[in-house]
Amino acid sequence: MTEPTAPDLSRLFHPKSIAVIGASPRIGPRIQGNNYIKGSVNMNFRGKVYPVNPGAEDLLGMKVYASVRDIPDEVDLAIFTIPAEAVLPVMEDCAAKGVKFVHLFTAGFSETGREEYARIEARLLDLARESGIRVVGPNCMGVYCPEGGLAFQFFLPYAPGRVGFFSQSGQLAAYFIMKGAAQGLGFSKVVSFGNACDLKAHDFLAFLGQDEKTQVIGSYLEGLSDGRAFLQAARAVTPKKPLVVWKGGLTDGGSRATLSHTAAIAGSPRLWQALCRQAGILSVASLDDLTLTLSALQRLPLPKGRRLAVMGGAGGYSVTMTDTAEKAGLAVPHLAGETIQALEKIVPPEGASVKNPLDVGPGIYVGDTLLKIMELLRRDPNIDALIVFQPIGLLSRIMGKDVVQAMVELTIQAKDQVGKPMLLVLEQDDGYGAGRLVEEAGERYQEAGLVVCPNFELAARVMNHLAEYQTFLSACRAEQTA
Amino acid sequence: MTEPTAPDLSRLFHPKSIAVIGASPRIGPRIQGNNYIKGSVNMNFRGKVYPVNPGAEDLLGMKVYASVRDIPDEVDLAIFTIPAEAVLPVMEDCAAKGVKFVHLFTAGFSETGREEYARIEARLLDLARESGIRVVGPNCMGVYCPEGGLAFQFFLPYAPGRVGFFSQSGQLAAYFIMKGAAQGLGFSKVVSFGNACDLKAHDFLAFLGQDEKTQVIGSYLEGLSDGRAFLQAARAVTPKKPLVVWKGGLTDGGSRATLSHTAAIAGSPRLWQALCRQAGILSVASLDDLTLTLSALQRLPLPKGRRLAVMGGAGGYSVTMTDTAEKAGLAVPHLAGETIQALEKIVPPEGASVKNPLDVGPGIYVGDTLLKIMELLRRDPNIDALIVFQPIGLLSRIMGKDVVQAMVELTIQAKDQVGKPMLLVLEQDDGYGAGRLVEEAGERYQEAGLVVCPNFELAARVMNHLAEYQTFLSACRAEQTA
Repeated sequence: MTEPTAPDLSRLFHPKSIAVIGASPRIGPRIQGNNYIKGSVNMNFRGKVYPVNPGAEDLLGMKVYASVRDIPDEVDLAIFTIPAEAVLPVMEDCAAKGVKFVHLFTAGFSETGREEYARIEARLLDLARESGIRVVGPNCMGVYCPEGGLAFQFFLPYAPGRVGFFSQSGQLAAYFIMKGAAQGLGFSKVVSFGNACDLKAHDFLAFLGQDEKTQVIGSYLEGLSDGRAFLQAARAVTPKKPLVVWKGGLTDGGSRATLSHTAAIAGSPRLWQALCRQAGILSVASLDDLTLTLSALQRLPLPKGRRLAVMGGAGGYSVTMTDTAEKAGLAVPHLAGETIQALEKIVPPEGASVKNPLDVGPGIYVGDTLLKIMELLRRDPNIDALIVFQPIGLLSRIMGKDVVQAMVELTIQAKDQVGKPMLLVLEQDDGYGAGRLVEEAGERYQEAGLVVCPNFELAARVMNHLAEYQTFLSACRAEQTA
Repeated sequence: MTEPTAPDLSRLFHPKSIAVIGASPRIGPRIQGNNYIKGSVNMNFRGKVYPVNPGAEDLLGMKVYASVRDIPDEVDLAIFTIPAEAVLPVMEDCAAKGVKFVHLFTAGFSETGREEYARIEARLLDLARESGIRVVGPNCMGVYCPEGGLAFQFFLPYAPGRVGFFSQSGQLAAYFIMKGAAQGLGFSKVVSFGNACDLKAHDFLAFLGQDEKTQVIGSYLEGLSDGRAFLQAARAVTPKKPLVVWKGGLTDGGSRATLSHTAAIAGSPRLWQALCRQAGILSVASLDDLTLTLSALQRLPLPKGRRLAVMGGAGGYSVTMTDTAEKAGLAVPHLAGETIQALEKIVPPEGASVKNPLDVGPGIYVGDTLLKIMELLRRDPNIDALIVFQPIGLLSRIMGKDVVQAMVELTIQAKDQVGKPMLLVLEQDDGYGAGRLVEEAGERYQEAGLVVCPNFELAARVMNHLAEYQTFLSACRAEQTA
């Protein structure tokens, strides 16, 4: 398959100048135009910002222009925060001015289901085609690019990273950025693109696929107006970079909701699954699954297969973790005979089971037993990956805070010792009143490059996605050599 | 169906005297005998405690007896914390003494897979049958009953409540108690019963079913040695009290794990599902689902059907909440026409959708708009239940802390206004750094009798369980009147 051409969106993410149309001298949470200006100021935007508003003269100390045509400079990106009824004449101004990209925060077009507003959207697209302007939206938040100095909210994080994200929902994009950042993700380029009248999902995907600053790609999608183009773009990207997608509208109620949200026709779940299989897309069903899978793809090696060692729960907890892992698609197999023999010598005996799931008790966190266990699991040919549950509240109640803090450092060493992908499970509120200790451990693990999941179910899903991606890559390689 | 006779277990949960066999003068986390003594002291046990150990003379200021036979009193409950090899002679002592209940913390019997230890367990059961002693275990934590003054760990909560729980895993029971208490659950009677050589799951279920102090019943099960008896017991209980079960061993790996944990044969998932359907058992698959479903069953009215209103998320969040709800078994239908007309008049218009999912923006938390919406949803004949997502971090960033705190109080009023079951979703770490505010809101909601879920997926599952139970009760009533 020949690689589809990606549109050149560099000036969208790294504009030299922005016009904010509808910037208002009023300040308030609903004056979104000012959010773009404040966002770019906060992100230390190095280009020029030109507020446009025929009814105002200056804004935050900046000169305000009555029309885009009056701006004494080239305009790479014009952001529309004006009512739907007002967009067409301004679009004509942009065409006359030679603006490169237009982003419409403005909503109220085809997603309303009203014929006259759908017609404005169609006319807007005609104007774009005639003038060569590329359009993001309408009905979306637009661009967040820390390196380019752009943000659609004033409180988004400054630090750049290597996660690219394209989202049909602006609210989810913002939530994803905040939640992802709390889990250690940093972003190269994020775009919320709403109704996608011109630039579509496959355009953003193809661009991020070729973008050197982007290492892993995430997405929230509602509908694909061109499924074939998306499949082609995905097939070109996924052998090089993983693509993790949360698809909205996979139920009756959900697809009704996408229609009134972004005018998107969600399509059938069966078709979506087939597309994911063909293109090696990792399909997730929650924001946590999305952020943690991206984080794990960045931080962990891929498992060679689906065979998981489960550790850290006692009795019934071991049983149910095993159930949860296998329901997620993993296997919890027997350890190799020699691993079991070696474990029997080093694990404190009381109430322990050195089978898999490993019910080995808190005694392993004293001395270097944990590291020895990790060395054995590294060598065990039956094991591809590892999930370790650490009930910090319970452990601190039984063994004291100091032992728990030492355990955290030991676990960080264990990560390198085992050399296979390892996820940790820490429950934030386990009822033992150790919330602060759990937080500290989580932060320390973050720093050390480990991936921490808030419950075992999520950890199992995330590990299964890693195994899924490895399977896809192997199939790609087999295809190439065949 | 005639109601099966429940064994009288009152003296197990409310003994007048306990003998702790294997109490040790040493103190430490692994000296479990002392945990029972410390537990009963902490729980303000009003009966007598008799430590038994032939090698010691006094313990925590109590006289220690060399044998159960030497105790100058009747013994209701004897707790064994001695090695497996030593239990048979002590069991003979208990028989001679006329002990009513024996609980064996002692492990290492049939679950080891070793013939000679399985034989000790069989002989123990013979002795019990001959002498009329009823046995809890072996290989389990035993009884927690705040009102009876018993606890198997010294740190379990004091306050009694109306949740009964019987568990094949002691670790899960302890974790369940702690986590449940943090979510506002209180307990009438909890028992961990391990290998269940004598008293079995159906015995505990039948007893809790008839226990006046128990309002809702939870369970963690690994295997049912007598499925028919369990079905009978469940059918007698569930028309009166809900029964929520987490079943372990429903996968290949999981069932291998139950065998080495409690020697339980887990049985097929198909059989288990059939049993749940026939007996109206609510089957859950995680500890959070278990605790939150029990909490919701205690605190909320049952929904008349599965038709859910979804509120509080914007754009893509609304779409994905709808998907998640419908995947869990609920429906997110159209609101009634008159509800929509009335909503259009009161909801702040910008970017809002007054369809279901309700994408109504944070403006509803100012003034009394929320209460008006609740009144409309109360009257809407298309709606049975409600899940409200409150992204507290985001809201406090947009509207300030004060508005969020006012929102919490408003939501508490809204609960009574709507008069239909309502679940709240608060995410603990949404990345906006509002952790403390989220905690405070959660505590306030707890106090006010609301049920708070940590994510939407769980909330949808919990609400679906409530609807499932309502469906079962309606079928029971239809059967009776037929």
